[in-house]
Amino acid sequence: MNVELANTPEPPYYVVVFTSVLGNISDQELLKYTQMSNILVELASKETGFIGMESVRNELGITVSYWESLESIRKWKSNVVHAKAQRLGETKWYGTYKIRIAKVDKEITFSRNHL
Amino acid sequence: MNVELANTPEPPYYVVVFTSVLGNISDQELLKYTQMSNILVELASKETGFIGMESVRNELGITVSYWESLESIRKWKSNVVHAKAQRLGETKWYGTYKIRIAKVDKEITFSRNHL
Repeated sequence: MNVELANTPEPPYYVVVFTSVLGNISDQELLKYTQMSNILVELASKETGFIGMESVRNELGITVSYWESLESIRKWKSNVVHAKAQRLGETKWYGTYKIRIAKVDKEITFSRNHL
Repeated sequence: MNVELANTPEPPYYVVVFTSVLGNISDQELLKYTQMSNILVELASKETGFIGMESVRNELGITVSYWESLESIRKWKSNVVHAKAQRLGETKWYGTYKIRIAKVDKEITFSRNHL
């Protein structure tokens, strides 16, 4: 991920807040997890209705993705590669995760002029 | 922050997604920023209507806080220390930030049994 914030439109739109803690996994599994994460970012960005994404991981991982509709979120959930990643995530990678789906009603942006 | 995910109730509830990139700041300002962040976590957790928070910072920072109502979010925004932090953030610390306020309608939790 680069460090640009997602360029989202005037609300309303939808956000998926995905927060997770990895299990105690090997370096090899961590590599597979990272590779799959990169593939998923690429795939999600090609989905109809995808707007943007922001993601950070330390011990805790937070990925926020923005979507035009609940239907586009449902379609992404059922993407074949994404579904495979979900199975691997639950059997191999994650200790715990939460997915929260929410409708964005207000957005405030600050950007410093002299940057 | 510890690495526990926020323990949120059955939806609906509200989420504030705060994403940011710091400006090119000195180590001294970075320390002040970090100290203020810690103070704000403490203060927010004492607000009426506060449910929980998840936060990660690398180059990109994402803080997600959960609230019982829009009114509790408004009250937190006008907290005196928080308001001071907002001014410092805009004049000293942030290159850019976005705040998105959304209503959570669905939550999915996964937790591995053998952890």
